[in-house]
Amino acid sequence: MHRFSRYCRESGKTIGFVPTMGALHEGHISLVNESTKANDITVVSIFINPAQFSEDEDFERYPRDYGGDIRKLRGLPRLPVDALFMPSVSDIYPDGYKTYVEVRGLSERLCGGFRPGHFTGVATVVLKLFNAVMPVRAYFGLKDYQQCVVIKKMVRDLNLDMEIVTCPTLRDHDGLAKSSRNIYLSAEQRPEAALIYRAMAEAREAVKDGTLKIEDIAPRLQETLLKSEAVTEIQYASAYDPRTLKETTEGKRFLIAVAVKIGTTRLIDNLMVEL
Amino acid sequence: MHRFSRYCRESGKTIGFVPTMGALHEGHISLVNESTKANDITVVSIFINPAQFSEDEDFERYPRDYGGDIRKLRGLPRLPVDALFMPSVSDIYPDGYKTYVEVRGLSERLCGGFRPGHFTGVATVVLKLFNAVMPVRAYFGLKDYQQCVVIKKMVRDLNLDMEIVTCPTLRDHDGLAKSSRNIYLSAEQRPEAALIYRAMAEAREAVKDGTLKIEDIAPRLQETLLKSEAVTEIQYASAYDPRTLKETTEGKRFLIAVAVKIGTTRLIDNLMVEL
Repeated sequence: MHRFSRYCRESGKTIGFVPTMGALHEGHISLVNESTKANDITVVSIFINPAQFSEDEDFERYPRDYGGDIRKLRGLPRLPVDALFMPSVSDIYPDGYKTYVEVRGLSERLCGGFRPGHFTGVATVVLKLFNAVMPVRAYFGLKDYQQCVVIKKMVRDLNLDMEIVTCPTLRDHDGLAKSSRNIYLSAEQRPEAALIYRAMAEAREAVKDGTLKIEDIAPRLQETLLKSEAVTEIQYASAYDPRTLKETTEGKRFLIAVAVKIGTTRLIDNLMVEL
Repeated sequence: MHRFSRYCRESGKTIGFVPTMGALHEGHISLVNESTKANDITVVSIFINPAQFSEDEDFERYPRDYGGDIRKLRGLPRLPVDALFMPSVSDIYPDGYKTYVEVRGLSERLCGGFRPGHFTGVATVVLKLFNAVMPVRAYFGLKDYQQCVVIKKMVRDLNLDMEIVTCPTLRDHDGLAKSSRNIYLSAEQRPEAALIYRAMAEAREAVKDGTLKIEDIAPRLQETLLKSEAVTEIQYASAYDPRTLKETTEGKRFLIAVAVKIGTTRLIDNLMVEL
């Protein structure tokens, strides 16, 4: 990977990078399209990062479809992906691996509270992939909003000479955010999962038209989400400061963010609100 | 710094980098000379890194002689230093800085046991400086042996596309390792400080000629060092595995390493032994 990237950069070519965990969906493809528009070379990586899963999480059963992913990337119009980087776990974490990156403060909030060590795993692998691929720009989907904030902060703090580009969440017709984990949902659960988006959108509209105060977003979301028996757990559901990720009851611009379990499947989503 | 380094690299020039905390001595200059021999461009940085000092350490009184340092670098034959990078503390750690790099395991041994957080501070600032300067090679003195091991490990673990070059310790006539902190020593303490090197060299010779077992190095060093009343504390003094930094009593190749206080001045030194 170093050799390929060094050659590109020495030839004056810009590298755009789309890091993924595979099981590619339209959200990933939209990132690839953004990259090919802005860069000479586009590199996609597929690496399911064990360091960002806790013991009790779904690392083992996380969807893997390497053949399908490769066909999807090959099938794109004008073959815009120049390289697919698929390191093995022992390439990324060889025996005796010891180095970890922490973005303190931001990593403990929201998902971090329910997934201890998750963002240390994310920051570490993303930094390693950046160092391997040496991109000028890297692309991330806003569905994982906290991940975007943590990675942007890491890039700025560590003086990396590159830009993080964040791209809008893609949704199904009923509003459910595209996610590799949606395939965990049963035929009965799938329509129920759209409630996450509907609850957030409804709260956003109510705040915008003045019938809901920001401090009442959290109870309203609770109320709406608990209407469905498919929702087995609400991990968080409230309004947050989009920079600090702290819960907020004020501001002209804030994030509504939700993490719930539908059956045993954990899903997250968010909407930015500008008043 | 990014703009300078990007320009150099895009012009196909190799950058060698010598990161320092200033108060430059012949040890630093030897690193500069190694860099200019192997690279088209040599960058020196001076940054006294608060993150690697504990509350009770000498950050405030650490020797600062920016004018003298600049004169020394300008006075070198054929002006081999192309750029001097002197960021301020707020350049490196702006308000809200949050990102830290940990090299777990290696950082807790030897000096790490007496300077908690020290190597997290070192790894973090060195990674930031590497990202700012984008060198092909960076140069470190072996006097700070553990620092060399931690940084090499970080570079390998994080997939940085660069090489760490370690250079021999320079010594005064009586064997005292060159160090910016030597100027803390009083006229009475200065000759006593040579005992550190003498104790290590004597132990090494005794092991080599078979009159001392490796497991007896630690007591022999203790005995020798405590002969001087100038030695107020021995933090560690023994034989260590040069890769894991664990104390060892066997092997064909090991490190004798010492950290002592002479009065209130903490000095470290080491010798590699090959049997």
